[in-house]
Amino acid sequence: MNVTQALISVSDKRGALEFARELAGLGVKLLSTGGTATLLREAGLEVTDVSEHTGFPEMLDGRVKTLHPKVHGGILARRDLAEHMQTIAAHDISRIDLVVVNLYPFQATVARPDCTLEDAIENIDIGGPTMVRAAAKNHGDEAGGVGIVTDPDDYAGIIAELKANAGKLSYKTRFALAVKAFTHTARYDSAISNHLTALVTNDAGDVSRQTYPERFQLAFDKVQNLRYGENPHQSAAFYKEPNAAEGGIASYTQLQGKELSYNNIADADAAWECVKAFDRDTANAACVIVKHANPCGVALGTSPLEAYKKAFSTDPTSAFGGIIAFNVEVDRAAAEAVSAQFLEVLIAPSYTADALELLRAKQNVRVLTCPLGQPAGAFDYKRVGGGLLVQSADEARIQLVDLKVVTKRAPTETEMRDMLFAWRVAKYVKSNAIVYCKDGMTIGVGAGQMSRVDSARIAKIKAENAGLSIPGCVVASDAFFPFRDGLDVLAQAGATAVIQPGGSMRDAEVIAAADEQNIAMVFTGFRHFRH
Amino acid sequence: MNVTQALISVSDKRGALEFARELAGLGVKLLSTGGTATLLREAGLEVTDVSEHTGFPEMLDGRVKTLHPKVHGGILARRDLAEHMQTIAAHDISRIDLVVVNLYPFQATVARPDCTLEDAIENIDIGGPTMVRAAAKNHGDEAGGVGIVTDPDDYAGIIAELKANAGKLSYKTRFALAVKAFTHTARYDSAISNHLTALVTNDAGDVSRQTYPERFQLAFDKVQNLRYGENPHQSAAFYKEPNAAEGGIASYTQLQGKELSYNNIADADAAWECVKAFDRDTANAACVIVKHANPCGVALGTSPLEAYKKAFSTDPTSAFGGIIAFNVEVDRAAAEAVSAQFLEVLIAPSYTADALELLRAKQNVRVLTCPLGQPAGAFDYKRVGGGLLVQSADEARIQLVDLKVVTKRAPTETEMRDMLFAWRVAKYVKSNAIVYCKDGMTIGVGAGQMSRVDSARIAKIKAENAGLSIPGCVVASDAFFPFRDGLDVLAQAGATAVIQPGGSMRDAEVIAAADEQNIAMVFTGFRHFRH
Repeated sequence: MNVTQALISVSDKRGALEFARELAGLGVKLLSTGGTATLLREAGLEVTDVSEHTGFPEMLDGRVKTLHPKVHGGILARRDLAEHMQTIAAHDISRIDLVVVNLYPFQATVARPDCTLEDAIENIDIGGPTMVRAAAKNHGDEAGGVGIVTDPDDYAGIIAELKANAGKLSYKTRFALAVKAFTHTARYDSAISNHLTALVTNDAGDVSRQTYPERFQLAFDKVQNLRYGENPHQSAAFYKEPNAAEGGIASYTQLQGKELSYNNIADADAAWECVKAFDRDTANAACVIVKHANPCGVALGTSPLEAYKKAFSTDPTSAFGGIIAFNVEVDRAAAEAVSAQFLEVLIAPSYTADALELLRAKQNVRVLTCPLGQPAGAFDYKRVGGGLLVQSADEARIQLVDLKVVTKRAPTETEMRDMLFAWRVAKYVKSNAIVYCKDGMTIGVGAGQMSRVDSARIAKIKAENAGLSIPGCVVASDAFFPFRDGLDVLAQAGATAVIQPGGSMRDAEVIAAADEQNIAMVFTGFRHFRH
Repeated sequence: MNVTQALISVSDKRGALEFARELAGLGVKLLSTGGTATLLREAGLEVTDVSEHTGFPEMLDGRVKTLHPKVHGGILARRDLAEHMQTIAAHDISRIDLVVVNLYPFQATVARPDCTLEDAIENIDIGGPTMVRAAAKNHGDEAGGVGIVTDPDDYAGIIAELKANAGKLSYKTRFALAVKAFTHTARYDSAISNHLTALVTNDAGDVSRQTYPERFQLAFDKVQNLRYGENPHQSAAFYKEPNAAEGGIASYTQLQGKELSYNNIADADAAWECVKAFDRDTANAACVIVKHANPCGVALGTSPLEAYKKAFSTDPTSAFGGIIAFNVEVDRAAAEAVSAQFLEVLIAPSYTADALELLRAKQNVRVLTCPLGQPAGAFDYKRVGGGLLVQSADEARIQLVDLKVVTKRAPTETEMRDMLFAWRVAKYVKSNAIVYCKDGMTIGVGAGQMSRVDSARIAKIKAENAGLSIPGCVVASDAFFPFRDGLDVLAQAGATAVIQPGGSMRDAEVIAAADEQNIAMVFTGFRHFRH
């Protein structure tokens, strides 16, 4: 069946006029309403108003325009049933074969600073979603059906298909459009529910908005199926937020190498978030090596090569098969050094041409680019049995002014610089985290322990195993010391300065222990648990 | 404004007749369609068919019934605008003040084994969601508006309010109903999108369904706001899946104690999932102590008291401030022992009355019950920057028949029993995980390390620090040994048997190392990474 008549009523008017002109050129009769009708008519197109079509006036300030059997009979009548076709003919209802409707995003309405609850409600579209859903339902079969166009990006393809196919849309196209349409209405109402269930009214009747809605609908777009999940007996897929801000791992582009695995993406995320924590003003370059979700080496350098060499030397054993991230362009020298080890993934904002050329010889290495950026205001999700923990992301960043020296000895300038570095690293190490650092590199990373004193012991053992010297190191602890035992381990190992949140009931005991051992200690006032 | 007329058209007919009878008794005129109309009429209620009301026949096999200005003008006219009221009067449209519509859950339609794509599409409701959304939009203001009832559980409250309030519904009630209604339609279309975007058509035109839809909409209901997130500078809330199967931590009931924190819930989940892994046929009781997302002690016992004592002795330092879970009823003896340590949360399927009495003296302890159960088929989510990793939960459970002895010496019966225990524990320890066990208890837990050999070293050090003896222990490794070094650490510590997945390129080297040191080793064939 040919497309004989289209109804066009769009909020996003991008490309609408050109699309309508093409349809008219193909002999398609145009129905329209409001602003869309004006736009088309002013451009000289012949357009019938829906009210004229229905013979029923647009009423109630436009609240009831298209909610009429003349419209919905024309959309919903099954093209494959003679009885349906006869029924609409008997009621003088003509087929509407193409519905071109998109909805003004509700999020955008409520994001306007002056948007009241009344404005938000008034902006909820009733007629539009009904046409979208009716047309999507009746996308039909091989014999014919309705095309529902909710995305201006589809206009060109539809015109091309109509021209190539004697004015017809294939079932495949109509089905794909219908699927997209139900996603459009699902997300429209999800945004409404998210907004309305976040509103709270106080006793005085004032309406405010809480961060966490009572009913929470989330939406994601699939990037790719994955070969398997965290383990080969689990299935998995990777999804991206619609309109995700650039800067997260989901914005990656893969330049070469095998498909990313579930664990690759998880570890690449850990490496990327950690390496982005270092500004270009701290040093020329930062490098992070991640294994099993933890940084096993982090370092700053005057060049990416230097940063990598230092990061690698923290823990060469663990670096084997790791994920390596840089916060600067990777040059040939760094690419060459990195290629000498077994690695799974390399991520950086960019690569020099000769670095890429060198990497091409190692086709097993997955090489990714990702734009630098720190999207703000994101939610963090943690799955638990039958539920979900939702929290605001840990966006706290330390500033020099936040620090409070609590010991008799104040840190030297070098100690202070290394402590700020160590504190930034500790944020990305699984709790309990103890991180020894010196000269802008990690010396020992104590991760993921159930007691802080064990993390302190492990970090020391790891430094020793890597042949690194602890005396003169500073140490970051991601949370306070509940007892002095952890601090004693660090002091006895030769650390000279410690950065930690403070706030323990036994702070006095821990400070005394530091003073006894000539440790300089600063409190940050906030912790960085990460589990 | 009084409720003068109601439109009732429900899929879920629970309570509908009684509700309609009460409305009729209050003088409310009833409009209805199809099966609902029949139900009410057969019970003797006076009902007007929507087609009679609109003066337009129900047509196209019911596809166009309520999509008519007589219905939608009656719903959408603003009660506070004289002009709107005059307009509908001029068109002989009467107000519809209450819309009682609920939608047949789309998930249930497509869950029927014989449901074809055509059935699924045919079952998508167009008129229903339109009335729900129109009524919700026009919930109005203090002056009046429409009540939209989508949940039979609200019938009783509405009748009570109408009776108490001279036939009126308050703005507050109408707003709450509207919010619920938009959530209803959001989730309805989300289910449609999830289903349709999971369909794939092969070249032969056969339609099948993939696990991961192209567009994925998730829905959660808030359980509670949390005081803060993983850290005090993060905000947080806890959500539950709608219709979550019982057995996950989200099914908890709190009997006493302070509000749960974000970390409490995360750790309680880890403890609960781990303790549920032990069947009652393994031992009378299992106890798990979790700290910082890792089990720091797990044990079986003839009683909960014995299981707790053994679990505690694995790592008394870490157990301080832990989360303790039992898979059996907690009796007074266990409650007494547990109360002697500082703990954050206690979780069990039930408590004896005298146990609860004793716990009441410790009001800081959060005491939870949770029904035992293993919901199957759940998705696991991991948040990454700008996206979400989705995977099927790790539901693999080891059976004796899965095991393959790969060494010259086969494990003894005792070793085998302890290895099965150790393997179950290792699944819940963060990777890389190395777990020493003996006599149904953990002896040393090496967790969360970037290299397996470090986990092996840590587990040994932890056992020594706790004064536990390693000789005679078995060991579980959650993934294969990439080199023999990790196995050598275990053997030199005195372990006699090892359970691990196998599958390393260097399995032969690792098996030879085991044989050299008279270790019995079995391969499971699958791993349990958990990060």
